Amino acid sequence: MSNDTLTARDENFSEWYNQIIQKAELADYAPVRGCMVVRPYGWALWENIQKSLDKRFKDTGHQNAAFPLFIPMSFLEKEKEHVEGFSPELAVVTHGGGQQLEEPLVVRPTSETIIGYMYSKWIKSYRDLPVLINQWANVVRWEMRTRLFLRTLEFYWQEGHTAHATAQEAQEETLRMLHVYEDFAIHEAAIPVVTGMKSETEKFAGAIHSYTIEAMMGDTKALQSGTSHYLGQNFAKAFDIQYLDDKNQLQYCWTTSWGLSTRFIGAIIMTHGDDKGLIMPPRLAPIQIVIVPIFRTEEEKALVIEYAQKVLGKLSAFRVKFDDRFEQTPGFKFNDWEMRGVPLRIEIGPRDVASNKVVIARRDLPGKEGKSFVEFDQLQLSVTTLLDDIHQALLARATQFRDAHIMDALNYDDLKQVVQNGWAYSYWCESRECEARIKEDTKATTRCIPLQQDQVAGKCVVCGKDTRTRAYFAKAY
Amino acid sequence: MSNDTLTARDENFSEWYNQIIQKAELADYAPVRGCMVVRPYGWALWENIQKSLDKRFKDTGHQNAAFPLFIPMSFLEKEKEHVEGFSPELAVVTHGGGQQLEEPLVVRPTSETIIGYMYSKWIKSYRDLPVLINQWANVVRWEMRTRLFLRTLEFYWQEGHTAHATAQEAQEETLRMLHVYEDFAIHEAAIPVVTGMKSETEKFAGAIHSYTIEAMMGDTKALQSGTSHYLGQNFAKAFDIQYLDDKNQLQYCWTTSWGLSTRFIGAIIMTHGDDKGLIMPPRLAPIQIVIVPIFRTEEEKALVIEYAQKVLGKLSAFRVKFDDRFEQTPGFKFNDWEMRGVPLRIEIGPRDVASNKVVIARRDLPGKEGKSFVEFDQLQLSVTTLLDDIHQALLARATQFRDAHIMDALNYDDLKQVVQNGWAYSYWCESRECEARIKEDTKATTRCIPLQQDQVAGKCVVCGKDTRTRAYFAKAY
Repeated sequence: MSNDTLTARDENFSEWYNQIIQKAELADYAPVRGCMVVRPYGWALWENIQKSLDKRFKDTGHQNAAFPLFIPMSFLEKEKEHVEGFSPELAVVTHGGGQQLEEPLVVRPTSETIIGYMYSKWIKSYRDLPVLINQWANVVRWEMRTRLFLRTLEFYWQEGHTAHATAQEAQEETLRMLHVYEDFAIHEAAIPVVTGMKSETEKFAGAIHSYTIEAMMGDTKALQSGTSHYLGQNFAKAFDIQYLDDKNQLQYCWTTSWGLSTRFIGAIIMTHGDDKGLIMPPRLAPIQIVIVPIFRTEEEKALVIEYAQKVLGKLSAFRVKFDDRFEQTPGFKFNDWEMRGVPLRIEIGPRDVASNKVVIARRDLPGKEGKSFVEFDQLQLSVTTLLDDIHQALLARATQFRDAHIMDALNYDDLKQVVQNGWAYSYWCESRECEARIKEDTKATTRCIPLQQDQVAGKCVVCGKDTRTRAYFAKAY
Repeated sequence: MSNDTLTARDENFSEWYNQIIQKAELADYAPVRGCMVVRPYGWALWENIQKSLDKRFKDTGHQNAAFPLFIPMSFLEKEKEHVEGFSPELAVVTHGGGQQLEEPLVVRPTSETIIGYMYSKWIKSYRDLPVLINQWANVVRWEMRTRLFLRTLEFYWQEGHTAHATAQEAQEETLRMLHVYEDFAIHEAAIPVVTGMKSETEKFAGAIHSYTIEAMMGDTKALQSGTSHYLGQNFAKAFDIQYLDDKNQLQYCWTTSWGLSTRFIGAIIMTHGDDKGLIMPPRLAPIQIVIVPIFRTEEEKALVIEYAQKVLGKLSAFRVKFDDRFEQTPGFKFNDWEMRGVPLRIEIGPRDVASNKVVIARRDLPGKEGKSFVEFDQLQLSVTTLLDDIHQALLARATQFRDAHIMDALNYDDLKQVVQNGWAYSYWCESRECEARIKEDTKATTRCIPLQQDQVAGKCVVCGKDTRTRAYFAKAY
């Protein structure tokens, strides 16, 4: 599919987003309202996200497990804020095996409750702690307005659930995983996220504190891209997660949870994409390099294909696709793979075969600037360097864009102005009232309160009260 | 947990199975009837199964994707046999977001219907074929009698769904994937499966032909461990999966599906386990090697730990666990890891440090026979060889056991006798009536009709009719 009908981002960013997902065959709408089919190209991206995160989870001592899809309705009701937060969004199974169920089952919107129940069975002594478990799962939230990857009825995610002997350990875990997400976003996805704490209004239903990584999309809107929650003893008390300490005293555990979902694919699309289509960050790209053969005669074709096979062999450490759709022109293929965001294109024509070279073109740099001639023997080294350069270039560009669209807004008029096309970084008294007023006036919400603040005194942009707290305000997905 | 209370297999195989799953912490019952929690040790085994199968799927040209959990009830009704087969087992979502749904949604018991619907959207031309997609997913079947791993309401599996231009291609794919399962079972899990075709009674609801890998458990019962279905045009016609051929004529596709589930973990447990507990096949074992330090004094402890770290470093290519529970005795640990089925145990005491050796003990060989002294410099090589030897030994033992319990039964009395403690290989006229009679009289069912038969004529063991078909009959899980 060519990209000639792709809407420009400036013209209609939202339409561009919907179109590119379909054109690049990342995902499709399912016949059930609001549900999504993740197609092979989109799922390959998710698999690379999974691999990369999973390694970080295991390196920090976590193990994977699998908990049930169905949760008894009564479980959700055990934590008051939790059930209030989630009950409007539940999908409910009322019948099984042709019979009406005695107690309806909820399709999990998140698993704190059922995992809490199991932890209360498994944890007996301080020797069993910490419990550090993650699961890769599908969850369901009955959203009314849905968009592919960003908000769908069913989505895919990982949810980590940990139990600790002390508040301090649980707090450390919460921030450790926040930083795992931050590190992953920056070093794998080339997305320069901003990290911080969620406001009381925006935090997870049942948490003491929620932390977030927030990314700026190409239209300057914010996207919450991963969250880590310090749950204190809320769920431990609701589910009796207790342990005997080393003095044989029964204590409640301290728990955390943290999650990152297929929503992150939306972040990748909207951070890096341009008017030609996707730009995949090289370390997560399903296809890092596409090889396009160029020839006119059958004799040239044979030569070019033979050489391309040698190039493929040389690049076996990378994710490479050889485009052998011989019914299509090279020009069609160039556009097609640009649209799909493959970071590097290798062109091989008869002259390249003769000179034992290839032409390599970068997706992120247009025209001649992004092209280089590379000797066959230098291929692995050049490709390694180029993929790394692209990662750095995407990260630098996104950082520059982000920083150009975050403004200090020290009074309310400035804030209202700034959030039209950027994020306002403003003093705020931390009251729900001032937060609600900003939302009502501008549709902007608090994105997060950064962990490191310079602690200079200022005045809340809404009510003028003295405060040392600053937060990011922005419209968000 | 020590293994002193584990029931002997001969005494009560079923009880042994239930106990070992709990003791080894592979899985636990969830608070919802018939649902399962797969604990980290069990899930790590499943992850190794996944990796190993996924590589084989990708090597044979398949891609992964994700299709929705929810299927409109009306979809299932489009294929008559399919809905008849699955409707008694459905979990049904009737409410979402606080509202009753216009059309109830089924929680997928399998995904032929929803994937068929999507394929009809995606496939236009012969150039789009074949479509070779797999998904790793959870599915739900409302079973009345459940057992961990073998039969649970929710289970985990992969389901491949492919569409082809011709019947022949689809048939080839069906058998290709059957052989992928066979190869995986033998070469990764050390399970000598028998392959063949299912009878009409036993085939998948909606298939033309179903093929199976059947494994013999330690109590001689059969376990269907993976299936591959040739669906003909049944689903293509129900969902209008059509393509334009190279003469621009509209044709229906030919489709297949194939699946292997967490049930396979049950096969591993019941094929290899003994009265001491699990025996993990080395290529899939979550932990291949456990290192147990042995010391009496603090000085010895320091020496032993330092040396153990060197051993760990040397074995970084393997999945190794260093047992640092210093409050437990070595004897306790030996029993504990034997019960959990870790293939190799490395013992390190002060004398081993002094002589720059280690003691290696095999899980599958008791006492001195399974022990060897290995020089530090020979560690990698020895461990590689030992793990391979264990794989071969487990496979040989299971093959011997299987072959000792499969008997030719050429008359009905023999068959009735044989299926009490083994599989009968018998002539059968392929009628449903004779199959039903055997089931009624003996509880044994047809497991499969092997693909290669010697085509010697014989007489159906039930009705005496001439036939060249032989099938395996056995009691099954």
